[in-house]
Amino acid sequence: MNLLLLFQKSIILQYSQWIFISIITIIAFHWFFKYLHRIWPLGKTLDHNHIIADKLNNDDEENEEHDEYTPALEENEHIPYEGATIKLPGGAEQFYKMVHNRRSVRSFKSHPIPSLKVIETCIKAAGTSPSGAHTEPWTFCVVSNKELKQRIREIIEFEEELNYKQRMSRQWTTDLRPLKTDHIKPYLTDAPYLILIFKQIYGFTKSGKRKQHYYNEISVSIATGILLCALQAAGLSSLVTTPLNCGPFLRDLLNRPANEKLLVLLPVGYPADDCRIPDLQRKDLNDIMQMY
Amino acid sequence: MNLLLLFQKSIILQYSQWIFISIITIIAFHWFFKYLHRIWPLGKTLDHNHIIADKLNNDDEENEEHDEYTPALEENEHIPYEGATIKLPGGAEQFYKMVHNRRSVRSFKSHPIPSLKVIETCIKAAGTSPSGAHTEPWTFCVVSNKELKQRIREIIEFEEELNYKQRMSRQWTTDLRPLKTDHIKPYLTDAPYLILIFKQIYGFTKSGKRKQHYYNEISVSIATGILLCALQAAGLSSLVTTPLNCGPFLRDLLNRPANEKLLVLLPVGYPADDCRIPDLQRKDLNDIMQMY
Repeated sequence: MNLLLLFQKSIILQYSQWIFISIITIIAFHWFFKYLHRIWPLGKTLDHNHIIADKLNNDDEENEEHDEYTPALEENEHIPYEGATIKLPGGAEQFYKMVHNRRSVRSFKSHPIPSLKVIETCIKAAGTSPSGAHTEPWTFCVVSNKELKQRIREIIEFEEELNYKQRMSRQWTTDLRPLKTDHIKPYLTDAPYLILIFKQIYGFTKSGKRKQHYYNEISVSIATGILLCALQAAGLSSLVTTPLNCGPFLRDLLNRPANEKLLVLLPVGYPADDCRIPDLQRKDLNDIMQMY
Repeated sequence: MNLLLLFQKSIILQYSQWIFISIITIIAFHWFFKYLHRIWPLGKTLDHNHIIADKLNNDDEENEEHDEYTPALEENEHIPYEGATIKLPGGAEQFYKMVHNRRSVRSFKSHPIPSLKVIETCIKAAGTSPSGAHTEPWTFCVVSNKELKQRIREIIEFEEELNYKQRMSRQWTTDLRPLKTDHIKPYLTDAPYLILIFKQIYGFTKSGKRKQHYYNEISVSIATGILLCALQAAGLSSLVTTPLNCGPFLRDLLNRPANEKLLVLLPVGYPADDCRIPDLQRKDLNDIMQMY
C-alpha cells in the first residue's frame, strides 16, 4: 500500500494533466500541419519566399500590377507540331529489343575509353526530357579524372560500409544478396566515366529571382531513364546507383551549389571481360499491365 | 496599471511554464524523429512490420536461423554478360535526333487509334527499367474505354479547378501560363489511350510476405523515361501529367490495391491536326553538363 501511495504522489501523476495536454498538443500540431500540407501542397509553402524575393528584386516601377508575378519562361506564340516524325525504322519492337538487351553492370574495364563526344550526345539526349513547367532541373557531372574518381570511391565506400552495417534494415541487405553487392565498389575507379546526376531543387531567373522547380525528382529521374536508353543505343553499359548519405559530401567535392542535390550516380563504360550479372527474369507483360 | 495587472493574471502567463514545456516537447519530438529518420533512412522504419510479418508467416521450422531473413529474389549463380550488343546503327547521335524530335502534346486526335500491340510493346520496353533491388515496382494501367476516360476527365477537372484556384501558388500558375494549361483537359477524352502509371510502395513475396520496394518513385520515373522513348520510336506522342490530389480517386476508380499510388498519367496517341506547342528552347549542353 505504501508503494501505491508513493506512486500516487509521484511526479508523473502529479503533473499527469500537463503531460496529457502536452501529448494532445503534439498530436494536434502534427495533424494540423499534415492538413495544411494537404490543402496547400508543394509550391504554396514557398509562396512567402517568392513574395519576399519579388519585393527585393522589384526595383522597377512598383505600381505596375502585372509585373508582380511573371512567368519563368517567355510567353511566346505557340507553334505547329506535326508529331513524332523521327522514329525508329523498326518502331516499338526494335526499341524494345534494344532496351531489353540492357543490363545493370557492376564490373567495368578501364579501356577502351568511350569518346567524350558520345557521352556528350547521350547527355544531350537526356536533356530532351520533359520537366515540370519546363524547368529542366538537372546537372550532369561527368568525372573522368582519376584522383577525383578515387576520392569519390573513398567517400562512398566509407558511407556504404555504415549503410550496410548500421543504417539499412537487415531485410534490405538480405534483398540485395542475390545482386552480390556490398560496400566495396571497384567500378567507381574502374569505369572510365562517372556521371553524377544532380536535381536542382530550385533555380534562378535571368533577373536573379529564385525559381521554383516543380516535381524536380520525377523530372530528373525521367531524364535518367532517357540517358540509360541513349547509352544502350551507343553500346555502352552503366549502373544506376543511389549512394545513401553521400550526397552532401559529393556535392562539396564537386563544388556544386546549394540548390543541387545528388539523385543518382552512374558508372559508364564497357563491361569487364569476366563481367557476370544476376540471372534475373523480368516480369511478364500481364504482371505489369492492366487493360481497362 | 490595471491593464498590466490583468495581463499578469491572464491565463497565458499563469500557465506560461507549461506552454513553454509543451513547445519544447514538440520541438524535441520533431528533431528526435528527424534524427531517427536520418540514421535509419527508408527501409528501417518498416523493419518492425517485417519482423511481425516474419513471425506470422513462419510456419516452417522456427529453429532454422538462416530462414529468418530471406531475399525477395532467388539466389542464383550469376551469368556472363558481354555488354550492349543490340544498339542503334546510328548510335547515340541517331538516338538524340529521335528524342529531340519528341515534344509534349496537349491536343490529340481520336483517330486513328494506335494498335494495342504497339502500346503493349512500349510498356514491355518500360518494364526493362532498372529498379531498387530489382523490385520492378510499377503497374501500367491502359484505359481505352470511353466512359472510363470521361469519368477520369471529370475527376481530374474537378480537382484541377481547385488546384489552379486554391492549392497552387500564384507563382506556379504564372509559370504555367506560357504552356497555356488550365484545368480544362480535353486530351483526357480525345486521346485514344490513357496510361496511368502507379508506383507500388511495397509488394508481396510468393509466400505472401510484405516486400519493401526501395526507391520506388525514382525507379518508376526512370521506367516512365524509357516509355517516352519507346512511344517516340513508335511515332506516338504523349504528355507527362501529375494530377495533383487525384491519386486516391483514380486508384479507387480503377480498383487498384492499397500498395499502389498514382505517379503520372500519360495521354497517348497522335497530335491533333491543328496541334500547337510552346515555342520552347532546350538548354545548351554547357548549361546542363559539367566536366571534371
